Amino acid sequence: MKQIGVGLLGFGTVGAGVVDGLQRNRALLSDRLGVDIVMRRIADLDITTSRGVTVAPGVLTTDSQAVIADPGVDIVVELIGGTGAARKLMMAALEAGKPVVTANKKLLAEHGEEIFALAHKRNVDIYFGASVGGGIPIVRVLREGLVGNAVVRIHGILNGTCNYILTRMEREGLPFDEVLAEAQRLGYAEADPALDIDGFDTAHKAAILTLLSYGFHVPMDSLPIEGIRGLDGVDVQYARELGYRIKLLATVARVGNAVEVRVGPTLVPLHHMLASVAGVFNAVMVRGDMSGDTLYYGRGAGREPTASTVIGDIADIARNLRTNQPRHVRTAQTALEKPRLCTAEEMRSAFYLRLMVKDQAGSLGRFTSILGKHGVSIAAVMQKAANGAGADGFVPVVALTHSTPEASLNAALDEITASGVVSTRPVSLRMLEE
Amino acid sequence: MKQIGVGLLGFGTVGAGVVDGLQRNRALLSDRLGVDIVMRRIADLDITTSRGVTVAPGVLTTDSQAVIADPGVDIVVELIGGTGAARKLMMAALEAGKPVVTANKKLLAEHGEEIFALAHKRNVDIYFGASVGGGIPIVRVLREGLVGNAVVRIHGILNGTCNYILTRMEREGLPFDEVLAEAQRLGYAEADPALDIDGFDTAHKAAILTLLSYGFHVPMDSLPIEGIRGLDGVDVQYARELGYRIKLLATVARVGNAVEVRVGPTLVPLHHMLASVAGVFNAVMVRGDMSGDTLYYGRGAGREPTASTVIGDIADIARNLRTNQPRHVRTAQTALEKPRLCTAEEMRSAFYLRLMVKDQAGSLGRFTSILGKHGVSIAAVMQKAANGAGADGFVPVVALTHSTPEASLNAALDEITASGVVSTRPVSLRMLEE
Repeated sequence: MKQIGVGLLGFGTVGAGVVDGLQRNRALLSDRLGVDIVMRRIADLDITTSRGVTVAPGVLTTDSQAVIADPGVDIVVELIGGTGAARKLMMAALEAGKPVVTANKKLLAEHGEEIFALAHKRNVDIYFGASVGGGIPIVRVLREGLVGNAVVRIHGILNGTCNYILTRMEREGLPFDEVLAEAQRLGYAEADPALDIDGFDTAHKAAILTLLSYGFHVPMDSLPIEGIRGLDGVDVQYARELGYRIKLLATVARVGNAVEVRVGPTLVPLHHMLASVAGVFNAVMVRGDMSGDTLYYGRGAGREPTASTVIGDIADIARNLRTNQPRHVRTAQTALEKPRLCTAEEMRSAFYLRLMVKDQAGSLGRFTSILGKHGVSIAAVMQKAANGAGADGFVPVVALTHSTPEASLNAALDEITASGVVSTRPVSLRMLEE
Repeated sequence: MKQIGVGLLGFGTVGAGVVDGLQRNRALLSDRLGVDIVMRRIADLDITTSRGVTVAPGVLTTDSQAVIADPGVDIVVELIGGTGAARKLMMAALEAGKPVVTANKKLLAEHGEEIFALAHKRNVDIYFGASVGGGIPIVRVLREGLVGNAVVRIHGILNGTCNYILTRMEREGLPFDEVLAEAQRLGYAEADPALDIDGFDTAHKAAILTLLSYGFHVPMDSLPIEGIRGLDGVDVQYARELGYRIKLLATVARVGNAVEVRVGPTLVPLHHMLASVAGVFNAVMVRGDMSGDTLYYGRGAGREPTASTVIGDIADIARNLRTNQPRHVRTAQTALEKPRLCTAEEMRSAFYLRLMVKDQAGSLGRFTSILGKHGVSIAAVMQKAANGAGADGFVPVVALTHSTPEASLNAALDEITASGVVSTRPVSLRMLEE
């Protein structure tokens, strides 16, 4: 049976998982693929610490370039992460005509254009299944399974740390800071959690989903990105009472001739499949023009789930190499006109609002009339404090709006804040439209 | 750009959807694939009735063999259904070296061994994504995305008609017969609903999932298949009170060295993702040894969703033909020892039991001691009638068991039935183990 050699760059948690998985399921894989996949070389700065897997002598090296250059290495797997060495090495591998597998969402989100252009020029395969959704084969689904669809919209829960925190906040009624500290103790959140909780990790994945579904590269600095750091537990509870769960959602959606890409906490109705996604799990709902709504759910991170998807990509390339033919699944659109990114003015949503309103006659009428003046129509309004105003003389009022331009809402909130009828700028959260 | 010609056999609902989708998204597809897919010939017995799509002159014919033989036809799409003409024509296409796309679950479940053997012998691609799960690309996920995983188990809601009926029974408290009649009026159920509601359609799909995950063909007549026809609304309500929903589940699971394949109504905990699958939607949960639990959800039938998956398969073959290389994704295992089917003695589950028990002192002790004698351990037991016995002197009692061999449970239920402590044989339903 033909052997396919893999060269691994980065022997961290996921790298060790890939080594383990290829060994453990080697017979199964070769039976399913008709080729034998062998881990030929592994490069890492640290080649002495045990990773709990057995590696043949001579496989480990500190020289990444040597791994790429090794004639026994048919596929290069980049699991270094970041945009420094990883970028240089990935470009070198593609330049050398070697197909690449990567899980590096940040690199693809920030430098994807350059990388995919080189892969295209050299006619080399590049697979990046594990860059979005960990163990969920969502990249493959968009590249292949739904290839006949014009994508209508995508909503994704793409960060397990955030979803874990939101689930705990809702179930235990705990404040954000406390749950974050707990998640850090348990290893579910990094010591520096900004990449996760401020929405950047989700935004990187949203950029990759945009490339896959609409064929263009999104400049990261042009995206509206909101995390969950500022989220008040009281809004999680009020949303729940109203029949919603708050999820950090990536949204990629066609709006007329443009595409809306954004990240932010969003109210999801309890009966919606995305509302059932609890704890560290991820899920992506894709609406295709033919398929209708489809959903993909699983573990968005972790050694084994991520390695599962990396191995799926290696297997695909190995099948291609069996016949010496790259499949070269395209990403960026070429012939078709690329859609443009939606402007802030084009973005619409229904909103959840929480206002701390002065407890006096006419307050409610005052802010509802300002909303009305800006064309924001109210679907429901509820005063939340049963026992009257707090010590400061303000009571929480929750309002749900109908779908409205975001710009109109913001103008209305500016005016309400300036009017003195509220104690602070109202909280506004988007609501998922079905 | 290279053109790839499609020959369609069967111009029904899904066939028309495929024609429509290929036309509508032609530019998108050719941009994504690098080839231009053209519907070259369509065969059907009826070529006069309008299907609401435009077809070029000369495309339609009543001669299926002519479509297969046409040198302009590179891919044959079989959407005739059934195991008669469809089988003959599919074999003819493979014999002629033409790759085949099919959605025919019954044909593959009953004659898959012969069909896949021929495809293997002729080194021709056969794709059958739409045979399971309609618009959900679950076949592709198992063949490719999760290819590096040993499958631990699969649970699927694979029949939209049954799921619609079960959803309505639970939400409206309606009896089975009434909901079935309504579903027939609305077109969600066939005039002859046996294939759906008696579980055979689900079993066909379970057989295909078994082939994909464990590499062997399951003889249909060796499967335990139970539908929802006998399901009493009262059990749907009791299950709900206990925190469960009843779903018709296909189960494919490794049990030691064997594989359990079965179809039957099953209690699913409300917090489980499968419990959120409502109405005509389908979903499949796959646990891989590396990926952990993953779930795939979408429309399990219908013109557009099914056509979406058929077009995904056509696209895959078209990519292969671009380089004149079949990918030949394997199904049946070859080198590895094939697992055997689980015997009835090896099957275990936790069970929901409903017993109509004589309302007299000692009845409860009597049946629980019989269960205990057979090694069936009880997790909870509840008397359901608040107001004592019915006119016949019997009261409903619900018991949940711990995991137990099915054979032990059946022996215990035989003895309980014979003992006279119950009015009829107790109802038993499996419970999903997490």
